[in-house]
Amino acid sequence: MKITSVSNSLIEEVLSYKESKIQKEQKKYIIEGLKMVDLALQKEVVELLLVESKLIDKYRNFNNVIEISDNVSKKLSDLKTNQGIYAVCRIQKNQELKGNYLILDGIQDPGNLGTLIRSAFAFDFKNIICSNDCVSFYNPKVLRATQSNHFNLNLLNEDLNNFIDNLKQKNIIILGTLLKQKSDLLENIKNKRVALILGNEGQGISKEVSQRIDKNIVIKTNEELDSLNVGVAGSILMNIIYSL
Amino acid sequence: MKITSVSNSLIEEVLSYKESKIQKEQKKYIIEGLKMVDLALQKEVVELLLVESKLIDKYRNFNNVIEISDNVSKKLSDLKTNQGIYAVCRIQKNQELKGNYLILDGIQDPGNLGTLIRSAFAFDFKNIICSNDCVSFYNPKVLRATQSNHFNLNLLNEDLNNFIDNLKQKNIIILGTLLKQKSDLLENIKNKRVALILGNEGQGISKEVSQRIDKNIVIKTNEELDSLNVGVAGSILMNIIYSL
Repeated sequence: MKITSVSNSLIEEVLSYKESKIQKEQKKYIIEGLKMVDLALQKEVVELLLVESKLIDKYRNFNNVIEISDNVSKKLSDLKTNQGIYAVCRIQKNQELKGNYLILDGIQDPGNLGTLIRSAFAFDFKNIICSNDCVSFYNPKVLRATQSNHFNLNLLNEDLNNFIDNLKQKNIIILGTLLKQKSDLLENIKNKRVALILGNEGQGISKEVSQRIDKNIVIKTNEELDSLNVGVAGSILMNIIYSL
Repeated sequence: MKITSVSNSLIEEVLSYKESKIQKEQKKYIIEGLKMVDLALQKEVVELLLVESKLIDKYRNFNNVIEISDNVSKKLSDLKTNQGIYAVCRIQKNQELKGNYLILDGIQDPGNLGTLIRSAFAFDFKNIICSNDCVSFYNPKVLRATQSNHFNLNLLNEDLNNFIDNLKQKNIIILGTLLKQKSDLLENIKNKRVALILGNEGQGISKEVSQRIDKNIVIKTNEELDSLNVGVAGSILMNIIYSL
């Protein structure tokens, strides 16, 4: 069977997995592109594969694959030029991983979250905890910017205050990035586990979360600068901590 | 006079300044939003101001301001929610500035170029030289990501080989970012002027440009990582050099 209608009910269901509300309810999301789909298959998180006719032979062995027409493919894609391959994946809770924690308080921009996920993997911040008002981990733009590195990380949405209080009981050092406060020395955190908190693009870190910070770190810049992009600032700080 | 038609010839001319070919020919570009327009007015680079009726009183003193209707405003804007203010600006050649050089060989993504411009200002890389095949400095998405920091920099499109040869004659150290080569020590560049070269998102630095590198720097990451985002990698390296 080949699906050729963009209003097919299965296609409408698949498209609904781009919405963060449905993602949370159904624990499913959609990805596109050869590289990301092949990785998802390796990780065994794919529930349904949808491919254009030109690719059907390559993926025929997968137990749940559906052939789609070019116009259905276009409807599923977020890109100007698509590769004709899509997958519905299960959201899996990874267990807590070795390495540090990246805590994101209200990050809104999908590009920023995706960039932070890619950099977090680079610098061994393998547990990423988003407040419930962050953009979804599984937003298509976020996924694109992660360059598939999200598969290797423990991604959680949590109440940050409770989560941080639990980390403190495990002697994990809470690092904040409050721009208006002085910067503490980082020397004595070498070889210790840390949690780095980054705040919302406009408002920064919320007040309640700020009160839980053990040490504050500020990146030195040209004094005329308003601020760095939060994806860049977070990546610079994770690199500094990784290099200690 | 108030322009209410989206097909008005002046509006069509203004819209053409979003295209990189027209930008190069006419030395003009278009910006939007209160913050960026106010900064452009301070910098005295505005040739024509276009504002919705609600803002006309505030900007009446500018010598070349035109009132536009909401639908014309919508046509001019690249954003879902616009602020109703646009300006046509002159591309001005800043003179060469104190500080270091950022050399970009074929950067294609507007978000990456904008991020690099913002970070370059943060870390005193005040001269940014793009190869002629980079995305335009004045692309609307680039400008948005710069957060107006482009006004403070010397932005040039040049043949990179010639430009780098000239820098070498001035004893400026050429730093490359070739991922497949070893990393050199950076200690002896402290207090020296440097030019940092970043390459295209897919291909990296072109061969001819690579041959001009004095020292190579590579960011240490998790070995499973494919690559960092070029905007992030460039920002990390500029921060490291700024902090030496």
